[in-house]
Amino acid sequence: MTRPLILITNDDGFEAKGLRCLVEVAKEFGEVVVVVPNGPRSATGHAITMSVPLRLKHYRTDDDGTQYYRTNGMPCDCVKLGMKVVLKNRPIDLVLSGINHGSNTSISLLYSGTMGAALEASVENIRAIGFSLSDYDLDADFSAAQVYIRKLIAQVLEHGLPPFAALNVNIPAVPLKQIRGIKVTRQALGYWHEEMVERQDPYGGTYYWLTGWLVNNDMGEDTCEWALAHNYVSVQPVQHDMTAHKMIPILKYLEE
Amino acid sequence: MTRPLILITNDDGFEAKGLRCLVEVAKEFGEVVVVVPNGPRSATGHAITMSVPLRLKHYRTDDDGTQYYRTNGMPCDCVKLGMKVVLKNRPIDLVLSGINHGSNTSISLLYSGTMGAALEASVENIRAIGFSLSDYDLDADFSAAQVYIRKLIAQVLEHGLPPFAALNVNIPAVPLKQIRGIKVTRQALGYWHEEMVERQDPYGGTYYWLTGWLVNNDMGEDTCEWALAHNYVSVQPVQHDMTAHKMIPILKYLEE
Repeated sequence: MTRPLILITNDDGFEAKGLRCLVEVAKEFGEVVVVVPNGPRSATGHAITMSVPLRLKHYRTDDDGTQYYRTNGMPCDCVKLGMKVVLKNRPIDLVLSGINHGSNTSISLLYSGTMGAALEASVENIRAIGFSLSDYDLDADFSAAQVYIRKLIAQVLEHGLPPFAALNVNIPAVPLKQIRGIKVTRQALGYWHEEMVERQDPYGGTYYWLTGWLVNNDMGEDTCEWALAHNYVSVQPVQHDMTAHKMIPILKYLEE
Repeated sequence: MTRPLILITNDDGFEAKGLRCLVEVAKEFGEVVVVVPNGPRSATGHAITMSVPLRLKHYRTDDDGTQYYRTNGMPCDCVKLGMKVVLKNRPIDLVLSGINHGSNTSISLLYSGTMGAALEASVENIRAIGFSLSDYDLDADFSAAQVYIRKLIAQVLEHGLPPFAALNVNIPAVPLKQIRGIKVTRQALGYWHEEMVERQDPYGGTYYWLTGWLVNNDMGEDTCEWALAHNYVSVQPVQHDMTAHKMIPILKYLEE
């Protein structure tokens, strides 16, 4: 029997510890190919590269033959380059993205390059999972995350996913024995409270840094935010149909 | 009575004809402030800028006092800079994005910077509309589009929008009398059939250009694609909740 073919990408770039930890687990399940950005691409959402040419560089081969490539592109470009150039349209069984350093709950899902890549795979109806650990530290401890990632990959390879679905998985940054299990969740309807920090450069020019924090007024116990705050692994099915279906009848008056 | 405050952005940059045509119509309804990228930002989706500082430059004042700013940021950054820095948290009545040169139907919605900006406003529960004309020409004729944009702005200012909704408006590139009216639509479930065009640079290095075309197998007469193909203006309500709600019960088995 052929081993599953697994394409891995991320948005933290080729040097991220989270990537190494994800590859480690994925190798237990099949043939792994890595295509990642050549540096951090946090908060690039579903951006793709059309104004500059894409470069693709092979940068590593593991002892077991696993191949690694990096690109100047975005996480979504990595999925496209992986499918078209590296794997030359071979059927892919699973696309994995992450493990992101930092959570992607609530509205962060929209900005997330990690989830942009997973959704990109779902557009092609390839099963996809984005993994995020709720810890921004470059040297974060991914060992408990790996246990749940192993479990989820096994389930998805065995049972599949509904058509055009991807999973947004957020894992609490606590020791394994403190994790209370898995919750299947919906997106909490929060927003980022943002400020623009104003500074002067040495030449007198003004510049701004975007900063802020997530505000969540959606306390539903079925949300990603609730699950993570209560030390559950949040598994949220996501889709790329962004239609607000319930609003269609309300807006029909515009047709008149 | 105070005139409505309207923030305008786009993803084609400050020089785009589509921007000028949108500003022209918006001025009929209220006080307009323009914050746009300093160049093209097509296909940047919901990307925001966190790795480099944001610059903001005032570049124009119209005779009527309308102020224009441009930034090195993304369309989403334009909305944030507009709200926080330019308008200093004054309540905004309407965010408009476009008029995009080229349609944003089906899956293009995910990649679209035009709609990224509109969705960004919807996260803050500000009414938002993204406009796209189905014509990539830099000198496209926006005159028929303006008629429908005028109509839609009037309706949205009068009747509002459901909470956290934005509108994705796609206008066919035909003369006014060929437009058959407005259809309220859902997102057609298409995908981009993509190829990576491989080339060599003068130094022997390989690079790739992403290219492709939209494949739509979703022939529903209630879709954006159908409306546009039949010379209707497609008005699609969109939301930033990306949860695949119907899949939650199916995936409950993962909790065991």
